[in-house]
Amino acid sequence: MEVQNVLHMTPGEDRNSYKMVIIKAKSFLEEAITDLYCKTFPKSLSIADLGCSSGPNTLLVISEIIETISSLCRKLGHQSPELQVFLNDLPGNDFNTIFKSIPCFLEKHRTDKGNEFGPCFIAGMPGSFYERLFLAETLDFVHSSYSLHYLSQVPHGIESNKGNIHIAVTSPPCVPIAYLTQFQSDFAFFLSLRSEELVYGGRMVLTILGRRNTDPSIKENCDSWELLALSLRDMVSQGLVDEAKLDSFNLPMYSPCVEEVKAIIQEQGSFHLNVMETFDLDSGTNDDYEKEDVEFDEIIKAGSQTIRAVAESMLVSHFGGEIIEELFDRYAKYFGEYVGKERSNYVNLIMSMTKKG
Amino acid sequence: MEVQNVLHMTPGEDRNSYKMVIIKAKSFLEEAITDLYCKTFPKSLSIADLGCSSGPNTLLVISEIIETISSLCRKLGHQSPELQVFLNDLPGNDFNTIFKSIPCFLEKHRTDKGNEFGPCFIAGMPGSFYERLFLAETLDFVHSSYSLHYLSQVPHGIESNKGNIHIAVTSPPCVPIAYLTQFQSDFAFFLSLRSEELVYGGRMVLTILGRRNTDPSIKENCDSWELLALSLRDMVSQGLVDEAKLDSFNLPMYSPCVEEVKAIIQEQGSFHLNVMETFDLDSGTNDDYEKEDVEFDEIIKAGSQTIRAVAESMLVSHFGGEIIEELFDRYAKYFGEYVGKERSNYVNLIMSMTKKG
Repeated sequence: MEVQNVLHMTPGEDRNSYKMVIIKAKSFLEEAITDLYCKTFPKSLSIADLGCSSGPNTLLVISEIIETISSLCRKLGHQSPELQVFLNDLPGNDFNTIFKSIPCFLEKHRTDKGNEFGPCFIAGMPGSFYERLFLAETLDFVHSSYSLHYLSQVPHGIESNKGNIHIAVTSPPCVPIAYLTQFQSDFAFFLSLRSEELVYGGRMVLTILGRRNTDPSIKENCDSWELLALSLRDMVSQGLVDEAKLDSFNLPMYSPCVEEVKAIIQEQGSFHLNVMETFDLDSGTNDDYEKEDVEFDEIIKAGSQTIRAVAESMLVSHFGGEIIEELFDRYAKYFGEYVGKERSNYVNLIMSMTKKG
Repeated sequence: MEVQNVLHMTPGEDRNSYKMVIIKAKSFLEEAITDLYCKTFPKSLSIADLGCSSGPNTLLVISEIIETISSLCRKLGHQSPELQVFLNDLPGNDFNTIFKSIPCFLEKHRTDKGNEFGPCFIAGMPGSFYERLFLAETLDFVHSSYSLHYLSQVPHGIESNKGNIHIAVTSPPCVPIAYLTQFQSDFAFFLSLRSEELVYGGRMVLTILGRRNTDPSIKENCDSWELLALSLRDMVSQGLVDEAKLDSFNLPMYSPCVEEVKAIIQEQGSFHLNVMETFDLDSGTNDDYEKEDVEFDEIIKAGSQTIRAVAESMLVSHFGGEIIEELFDRYAKYFGEYVGKERSNYVNLIMSMTKKG
């Protein structure tokens, strides 16, 4: 087992875990694209991938969609429809690197598929998906993987969550409520924005980092944020971080359970939820790593880097850049102790919906 | 007079000359956008800027379009239509810098115009405009400034153009013919691609670096390429550049005259040419600079940098990077002698056309 295959701390940022998520989502994608194409055999399809990031897997979901359409058109003896793809992420995302890889990506599909590969136009659309991004009623399909657990802002009214940086066992009861309220507001707003942009009958497939337990305070997997908070508290106790700074820091992320997501979709009302499933990504335990002959230190290093990639910008903007090296050294130590003891897994929610008429 | 206002050697690369071109093109833009909007009062308009580059003027043409639409809708008491803007350039263009400037750009328009500013979605579309870039029949308006004088390739059959790097007084007669043939083929192909992408009645405003004389060998303005060839020949004679290397190098650029462009549009047949005009951008002479109290050295430096910005990548890929510093030192010397003597101006062709039914 290779290091990159066992670490799934924050799958959105980790190449191989993200790849695994895409593979899990494949049947959802196939069903949605097949449905969209076979309903009217359109001459073109407009597709958006929201929170596309920039890395070796950015174009993977587009590949899956191209494969599905090519295979459909081969079976039906049709000419492939034209595809307009919008890759969306925040304006600070590295679109240059994605764009430089597109000619090679398209050439490969052209060579592999020949006439079954229709024109495919890949654009970058910078902006927050908590705003309108596309012309009204122009999109056929929206995909988003590992992005919608990011909230539009830190929830209000959680000043009492001192010493913690997220929902923790020691958080006051108002904290999980405030996080849920923020998620409900953000996700409902996301649904209403996308319903303006999708055509009638348009489809959406979303994957979110979620949880199984309806009580968000009950921890069901390796809690990276608690390990990070522990590291910060150590630094406070040694005078390296200002206590007030830690007390006022909370991460703008939320992992919902199935029931919460279902309730929001139903109440918002623009979409019919076709199916929602949960699946786990397992990062194993120390025993597994030993069996599989993986260097333990490498795992710790990679796990620590992953969390750093997710949280660094938020930490730097709040605490300043000086504390980062020290903080992640401490994090790596705690993470090492954790990985040695317990199996850690990540719960994923995947859902497929259709825009109502 | 400031240096940036007098240098227009290669306006596509030079910030302020490009700005001047946009201002000249303003009335063309206004007419086209007004026509498009007032014909059917659409709820949305899709616009592409081809060869947008990356710099402080990249969004200038989009600003002009937004101004025109806001002003129209104010007069008519309409709600502004939604705008989809595609900024196109080659995949190596620095889209990241453009994207980072978009939130501020939109915020400024929102503040200035309030309710008259409708939703505006700005995407990046990487790729060559000598390929299809957009879904069939989805664009309302195409703009391109200072890009279409770049050919898709160096013309074939000009091996005899030894010692020159472009059409020169000493070029064999086949050279201007080969350049014209390549331009005819590229421009006709460009028109056919865009006619597939534009809706019926869609508009196109193009500005090209052109010439007044129908004979391309007759030089009517400061010939930067001849000064660059002169510098290269010096380096060949001193053994610093391989003669065979110089003999096999030709720039993939062509400046057409009005008659050539008209003939191609007519023969290709997809567009009705509404109007074509020529205008000059004047870089003045040494006398002007002295009158206007501009440092002569500064002018030479800036002029040399401009040509370097245009030609460096092509020169490096052919000659290697080692010769560049020396080459542009020599170029600056020749350019200084030239600017001291003669008025140099650039001829621009601007045209507005409509896609036929």
